[in-house]
This record gives sequence, C-alpha cells and structure tokens, in this order.
Amino acid sequence: MTKSSKVASLIEELTRLAESGRPGDRLPTTRELATRFHASPVTVSRALSELAALRIVRTEVGSGTFVAPRQRPLDPDYSWQVVRLGTAGIDARRVEPLAATRGGADLLQLSWGFLSPDLQAGDLLTRAGVRAARRPHAWEIAPPEGTPELRRLFAASMGADADDVLVVPGSQSGIGLVLRTLAEPGDVVVVESPTYPGAVVAAQSARLRPLSVPVDGEGLRADLLDRALDETGARLVYLQPAFANPTGITTSPARRAELVRVAQRYGAFLVEDDWACDLGIDGSTPRALFGESADGHVITIRSLSKIAAPSMRIGAIFSRGPVTHRLRAARAADDACVPAPLQAIASEVLASNDWGRHVRAVSGALGRRRDALLAALSEHLPGMAPAVRPAGGLHLWLRLPPGVRSAVVVDAARHRGVLVGDGAHYFTDEAPGEHVRVSFGAATEAELEAGVRVLADVVGTVR
Amino acid sequence: MTKSSKVASLIEELTRLAESGRPGDRLPTTRELATRFHASPVTVSRALSELAALRIVRTEVGSGTFVAPRQRPLDPDYSWQVVRLGTAGIDARRVEPLAATRGGADLLQLSWGFLSPDLQAGDLLTRAGVRAARRPHAWEIAPPEGTPELRRLFAASMGADADDVLVVPGSQSGIGLVLRTLAEPGDVVVVESPTYPGAVVAAQSARLRPLSVPVDGEGLRADLLDRALDETGARLVYLQPAFANPTGITTSPARRAELVRVAQRYGAFLVEDDWACDLGIDGSTPRALFGESADGHVITIRSLSKIAAPSMRIGAIFSRGPVTHRLRAARAADDACVPAPLQAIASEVLASNDWGRHVRAVSGALGRRRDALLAALSEHLPGMAPAVRPAGGLHLWLRLPPGVRSAVVVDAARHRGVLVGDGAHYFTDEAPGEHVRVSFGAATEAELEAGVRVLADVVGTVR
Repeated sequence: MTKSSKVASLIEELTRLAESGRPGDRLPTTRELATRFHASPVTVSRALSELAALRIVRTEVGSGTFVAPRQRPLDPDYSWQVVRLGTAGIDARRVEPLAATRGGADLLQLSWGFLSPDLQAGDLLTRAGVRAARRPHAWEIAPPEGTPELRRLFAASMGADADDVLVVPGSQSGIGLVLRTLAEPGDVVVVESPTYPGAVVAAQSARLRPLSVPVDGEGLRADLLDRALDETGARLVYLQPAFANPTGITTSPARRAELVRVAQRYGAFLVEDDWACDLGIDGSTPRALFGESADGHVITIRSLSKIAAPSMRIGAIFSRGPVTHRLRAARAADDACVPAPLQAIASEVLASNDWGRHVRAVSGALGRRRDALLAALSEHLPGMAPAVRPAGGLHLWLRLPPGVRSAVVVDAARHRGVLVGDGAHYFTDEAPGEHVRVSFGAATEAELEAGVRVLADVVGTVR
Repeated sequence: MTKSSKVASLIEELTRLAESGRPGDRLPTTRELATRFHASPVTVSRALSELAALRIVRTEVGSGTFVAPRQRPLDPDYSWQVVRLGTAGIDARRVEPLAATRGGADLLQLSWGFLSPDLQAGDLLTRAGVRAARRPHAWEIAPPEGTPELRRLFAASMGADADDVLVVPGSQSGIGLVLRTLAEPGDVVVVESPTYPGAVVAAQSARLRPLSVPVDGEGLRADLLDRALDETGARLVYLQPAFANPTGITTSPARRAELVRVAQRYGAFLVEDDWACDLGIDGSTPRALFGESADGHVITIRSLSKIAAPSMRIGAIFSRGPVTHRLRAARAADDACVPAPLQAIASEVLASNDWGRHVRAVSGALGRRRDALLAALSEHLPGMAPAVRPAGGLHLWLRLPPGVRSAVVVDAARHRGVLVGDGAHYFTDEAPGEHVRVSFGAATEAELEAGVRVLADVVGTVR
C-alpha cells in the first residue's frame, strides 16, 4: 500500500467514525487514532486535515478534533431514494405538456389549452382584483366547500342548488379529487379514447388503471362502455360530452341518454368534465349531462380558468346525494380552503354586467379563429380536413397521412417555430393512427394561417 | 283492487314505461295502453294526468303524450350511492375541526390554528394585493413548480437551492402530496402520538395506515421509531420537530440526530412539518431538520398561512434527490399551477422591508399571549400546568384531572362561549389520558384570561 493510498483508506475509516458520531462529538486523539488504525501519527494528521477541508471534522487548536456540523456534501448520495421510490406511477411524458407554460413570443402557439391573453378577461380581473385586495378581512379563511356567494353563482349557471356545488382550485384538481375519492387504488376508471392527458395522470396519481373506450362521431360508445363496466367492474367513467379534447366531438342527445342508462344499470358514476362549457361558438353550448341523471349518477366539473384566465384556478364540482359529503370531506382533507380573495374576485367577475359581454366576445373570436384555421387547412392541407368541425372548445383533431409520424411532425414544426400537439399523448394504449391536435384559441387568425403553412410544409417534407 | 289502487299501480307501470324511453319518445295511445295494462281508458287518462303533474310525461293536445325531459325528481333515490361509496376512508370527525371557520365574535377563540386578524399581515397583503392585481399579465399561467422569484425567496429562508423548492397551495396540500407520492396505498406511515389531525386525514385520503409512535419531552422516540420501521416496513415518518402541534414539544438536538440516523438505517423519509417556523417566541426557532440529512432523508414543508393570513394558501416543499422530480410530477398532475397573482403577492410580502418587522411583532405578541395564558392557568387551574412551556407555536397542551372527560369539558366550555380543542382528536388510537389543547394565537391576553376562568369553572363543575 502506497503512502497516499494509506491516507485515502484512513480518510475512509475516519469518515465512517465521524459519521457514526454526532456533530460536536470529540474524536480520539491523534495518537489513539494511530494505534487504532495501525497508521503513523503523520498519516493520521494528514487524513484529519483532509477531513477538515471536507468539513467532516473541525479541529480546534488546543482542544481537539470534533465531528463537524452536518453540511451538504459536495457529492451527496441519493441512490437510496431510487430504491425507495420504485417505478414512477405518473407518466412524466404526459405531465410535461400539461405543465408547459405558454412558450416564447417567437413561437406560433397552435398547441395550448387556454385562450391567448387578448381574449382573457384581463380588465375584469384587474378591477375585481384591486377591489378584492382592499376588502377588509380579505385574507380570512373561507369555508372548505367554497364561499356561499360563489357557490350560488356556480349553481345558477347550472340550474342546480348551491348545496350541490363544491368549489375547488381548478378543474384539474377537481378531476383528481373525484377520481381519488370515488375509486380505490387498483380500480379501473374508464376514459374516452382519445382523451385528455390530464385525466390520465390524475388517474395514475390515484393509482387507478385507465381503460380506454373508443368514441365515435356521437361520443363515447355506449355498447362498449356497457361491456367495459360489465367485464372490469369499473364504476367510474371520465368523459367530456361537449367539444371533447382533443376530438372536438359533442355527444349526441341520444347517446347522452344511453350513457346515463348504462351508468344506472351498473351503479356507476359518470364524471363529466365540462371544461368548455363557456367556449361554445355557434351559440348553442349543450346543456351539461348533470341534469340528465335524477339519481346523482353524473358528477360535473367546471372551471373558470378557460374563459377567464389560466391563473384563475377556480372550479366547481356539481354532485347530488351522499357523494357530495364524501367529496367535501376529501376536499377538506386536501386543503383548508380555496383562497378567499380568489373566490371574491371570481364572484365579482361572474356577477358583473360585463361578464356576458366577455363570454360573447370570446365566442365570436373563437368562431373566427376556428374558421380561419379550417380555411387554411382546406387550402394548404386539403387531405387533412378534420372529421369533426367542432361547435366549440379550442382544438381541431387532424389525422396525418399514412406513413407520417406525429412525433416527427411535432418536432419538425417546433424547429420551425410552430407548436402543435402530438396526438400520441391523447391515447393510453396503442394509437389507432397518427394525429396532431391543432389549437385555435391561443393564436390570431394570421398566426393560424402562418402556422398551417409551416405544418403543410413539414407534412410534405417528412412524408 | 279499488279504483284508486288501480290508478296507483298503473302510475307505477307507466312510470317504468316512460323511464325506459328517452325524453321526447311518444307513448302509445290511451286505447293501446288500456288494452296493454288491462285498465279502462278512464283509469289510463287519470294515471297519465298524474304523470303529467309529476312531469314524467308531457301531453300535447292533438299530438299525444310524450316522455318529458328529465327533471330533478321531488324524491330522488340516491341509495345506490351508499353501496357504491362503501365505508368512508376519511374520518369526518377529524375533518370537521380542520374545516371550521373562526367562529362568531361572541365566542372566545381558544382553539384555532391561525393568528387572530390583528396579528395577521393585513396591511402588507393589501398593498401587495393591489399591486399584483395591476400587474400586466397578472393572471397568466405560472410554472407548476412555482415562480422562480418565490422559489428563490423560500430557498433563501432555508439556506437551500431554489431547485430544492416546490411551491404548493398551503402546507396541508403539501402534506397530502408528499404522503400520496411517497407511499403506496395500504402502506404504514408513522406519525407522532399525539399528532396533527390534518396529517391523519391526509394519510387516510391517500389510503395509508397511520401508526402512532409516542413522543417524550425530547420529541419522537427514536427507539420506538426504529422498532416501528423494522416491524411494519414503514418508510415514511411524519413529524413536527419544532413547537409540535398539539404538545408544544421541540425535538432536542440529540434526538434530531438520532431520528436522522434511524431514517438512514432504513432508507426512510422524514417528512418535517415545519408549520411554526415563523412562530418562534423566544428568539430562537430551531433550524429545520432539513439541513441535517446530506442524502435527502428529510423533506420539509413550510407555509405562509400561519404567519401571513389563513387565506394565503402558499407553502413550499423542500427536498433533495430524485424525490424532487417525483414530487414535481405529482404536483403537475394535481393542478396546472398555484395562481400567479398569489405567488406575486407572497413574493412581494416576503421581500418587503416590513416583513421582518411583522415577524418580530408576531413573535412579541405571541410571547405576551403565551405568558398571559400560563399566568391565568397557574392562577385558576394550578393543577393543570402544562408539561411543556412551548418556545413558539400557538398551543398549550393540558392534561385534565383524573375522571374529567375532554369531550365533556369542550362541550360545556362551548356552551359558555369558550372554544377549546378536544385532545382526543390528536390521537389515532387509544388516548393515554384526557387532554385539551388551548391556543394562544387567536385571542387577546384579556380573552385568554377570561377563557381560562370559564375553563376552570367548567373543569371544577364536571369533575
């Protein structure tokens, strides 16, 4: 053993010794250490100097050497965590796009689940925000189920009772709460195929197993839903009956009644994500499924973040029957309350005279943008006309030509400054084809036109 | 069968018939129905009138009778939900006090987990709130892990890196996130006995099994923790090392080192709820346990809702190693972001020149209130002096005299206008004695004195 490797091995021994003690413990003298580790006092001194430099020990002249206060080591060992954590339950690839912020101003945003800033309720929120900040007791606690005023306003929008409303911090949080509360870990939850990736990760977070049931032009297929509930024992169905993300499909009246009947037959809950309730274009947003089940089979989730602004994290869960109490208890276990000032702002905005005007303005703008996008597609990508011309929402769902991979298109478009959504993220299993999702809520008509030109170019190139 | 019971049974038959159809379906003619159900046309007409009154069918003169649009029935049948929901996982009795708002002005508030309004950071929040509301792009989305500014500020308060910080909507939400992410349903999570009920319901919500490990005057007993981890396989430990709620105990330096060593031995996480980090009274809030594990065994949760105001639902999770990514993904699955305006307000308040003054003012007031409470107890209830004189936090933990039940005391005190906490809520298993928790953060010195007088009276009466 060379001298330096002797020092190295002594450093190792002494580190173990120090780490087995408590900060402030005194180490044996140099002489004692030399005897104990069969080393010369010089070697011990050199090792201790090294340890002092590493801040593992602290030497005080005249009184000895002590175990140093614990410091963050230069090279901490987190490997134990890898074992402890095991396999991730939540699919990070699916979370990433959810967690994305809007992207730089140099990018054309044709993949975004919110409205562009010019369509958001900016002025209304500013005015209400200033007033809420000045309220006395603005920051007191609010009831865990929401303020009476906001619950009344949500209830009125649905034709429900205020007691049916649970205020939650946004619809994503509402989806998670409902899935977590109404199914047990390991249970199957039915989702549409394709479906919103946020619902899939919420299900994963609750340790549920998402089961895809295909949609057709009228919505979720009731015959296959029946079979899925029968064969898997699933009793929870997540769906978007109006302007579904990503397909744009609105469930037909006949299909709605069928789905409710299937839920009744199996004693199942339909979890209606009514995310686009304020984003109808052609004047006719379908009524929520909520009203169609007398006996509480439908639980509906709505949100203000789409129609007002992304940071207006206020949503509502509508439910009837004992499930209401179950959800309320789970919400109280999650958090004391949704911040009172945020609820005050939401209430003021919803009750304001300008609110209706805002909603109509958004509807008009979305219609123009959707039509501009459809026109651009029909001009530049005539082979990729969407199967559905959505009457609301934010997205078109486009099937790529045979042989063209969505990941390649998305990547190539991003390199050319255009963001579009990869259809693969909307399937939990094998995708029955390659798709992109193109959003028309976050880009101007001119930007949509420019974006489609690039997309057409990219599709032509990678084909 | 009498005529009216004939009508009644026909009503039942026709209701089933209508409900098996879709809204808008035409019913057979009166004559056809009479034949089918062996009734006279008059009986059928009377039954249909009743059904029309119940809005189950709708009769249009000249065109027939139709299945009516579904209405909420007067007496909906939610009984299927009882079967579907099964036994509640979350203990509603424990949730109730968590979800309680402050209570009327006529009540003496000696049971409350927040500061009284006069001690909250009202002016600071108002000023920052107005400014945040006026910011351009105030309501844009924020990164799911929190704004860079707020993460930096939290990191600085801990001596950590901004990358170690995940912003969450309050500490209750942070506890839930950590427990849900780092343990699997059915796993055991160790909690102190007694412990904060919010942690117990968060564990229940995550389908974990809380296991109590007793504390002594130095904190959680490390020898028993070792045994618990060994015997149950638990790898998650929830604890409050500083000014624990409800006991007021601060973990001793020696015990802190021991607990970290036990966590290392088993590859376990210590989840440090540092709820009272800003509520030190005697100038010396202990450093967070976070810094004492080099290898990421400690995950710390802090919050602004205690020191700022209850509706300031902003907290931070501090962690190191791969667990940081795991928590971030789980947070993104929960919600798009903590509202940007709320983060802007929190950042401004934390960075303001007046913040330090606010924290010191709270510390001084808490000290005076604690001492007033201790003095009142020593005068009026000398037999119930607390075992611990807490150096911070909001609560005293008092053991009741033999034979006196906490539920009886709490109830009798409430009837006389004084709210105190029932010690039974702080145990997950058999309570080793009867206790009340008396809070000194939400009442003035005079109110504390008056409250203790009533408490003394009540204890004397029910004994």
